[in-house]
Amino acid sequence: MPKIVDHEERRRELAEALWRVIAHSGPQAVSIRTVAAEAGLSAGALRHYFQTREELLVFAMDLSEERVVGRMREQSLSMAPEDSMVERTAGFAEHMLPLDPTRSAEFRVWEAAGHLGDLDPRLEERWIRQRGLYRRLVGGLGGLPPLEDPESEHPDPWLETWAAFLHTFVDGLALQMMVNPAQVPPETGRARLRSFLAHVESTRK
Amino acid sequence: MPKIVDHEERRRELAEALWRVIAHSGPQAVSIRTVAAEAGLSAGALRHYFQTREELLVFAMDLSEERVVGRMREQSLSMAPEDSMVERTAGFAEHMLPLDPTRSAEFRVWEAAGHLGDLDPRLEERWIRQRGLYRRLVGGLGGLPPLEDPESEHPDPWLETWAAFLHTFVDGLALQMMVNPAQVPPETGRARLRSFLAHVESTRK
Repeated sequence: MPKIVDHEERRRELAEALWRVIAHSGPQAVSIRTVAAEAGLSAGALRHYFQTREELLVFAMDLSEERVVGRMREQSLSMAPEDSMVERTAGFAEHMLPLDPTRSAEFRVWEAAGHLGDLDPRLEERWIRQRGLYRRLVGGLGGLPPLEDPESEHPDPWLETWAAFLHTFVDGLALQMMVNPAQVPPETGRARLRSFLAHVESTRK
Repeated sequence: MPKIVDHEERRRELAEALWRVIAHSGPQAVSIRTVAAEAGLSAGALRHYFQTREELLVFAMDLSEERVVGRMREQSLSMAPEDSMVERTAGFAEHMLPLDPTRSAEFRVWEAAGHLGDLDPRLEERWIRQRGLYRRLVGGLGGLPPLEDPESEHPDPWLETWAAFLHTFVDGLALQMMVNPAQVPPETGRARLRSFLAHVESTRK
């Protein structure tokens, strides 16, 4: 199946080129022209894969999600058993905070893709997955057994309320860290996250 | 003093033109050229007031803050005495949420100006004023006497913690309402804000 292999290989190369454009110049620099140039292709050849700038941004968003989920999976395999539940939860939530250049680039993609609105065919799906993640984190903090279906509403109103609160809080913290790094440097962001998670945990006891 | 009157009048006209560009096309459309055209001036004449696009965005941010503060002042004069403290506080905090086209445009300006970083000479000042506002809101919810100096750190750790949490929460809520209006429509945003404020109040009792 050489065709399929070629296609996957090419897609991977394009993903890397796209990510280099974003890391160097931000998502506003993403265009058919800039990504084609970075990948060493003609704009026409790139259009074989992506018709519009919006499709490139949706692809960037997909990649960004894959990277976050991949890092979380790695982390869940290597967690220190002596860590408190707040510390473990913070470790997961920190993948959504712009604590280093990789995560800052991911935030900027998320923000750029956020403005696509209905042009992102997976906007609703992404939201549901995010909320599912926060339900899992809050469930862990509350000592609940692992959720069978975290992407659906849970009967426990405590879990629903705090999953929504934590989701909102982490998004706001990420935004503040991006926009006001002097006021919310990484250590402040990390400390505020832990302080909020400790509060969430305390509301269950 | 005809010169000064002219200058103030012209500044007001420019502010209105700038705001029309933002309301119609978003802050990314702001440029010396587009604002000059909207104001019926040449780019050269506009440069008499603003040298760069960044200066225009800083001006937009100043205007946006003035508008928010003006609305809050009006509101404080017309508050219903029978409203609960959560309801009053929500009324103030809602000026920061994109609940209508005016506030959505303000959010977009805030977001665009946020990326100016050090090009905004008043970035730190704005942050301090914002935090001062949240200290006042949380102080009210906690039944504290009016704060003498809300823009400085308060000795009560409860107030400091919850002012930071509420500031983070409202920023996150505004972001989610902008990016995911289908998941966080106005009524959901308003309800989640009240639910969080009621929780803040309950932590003091």
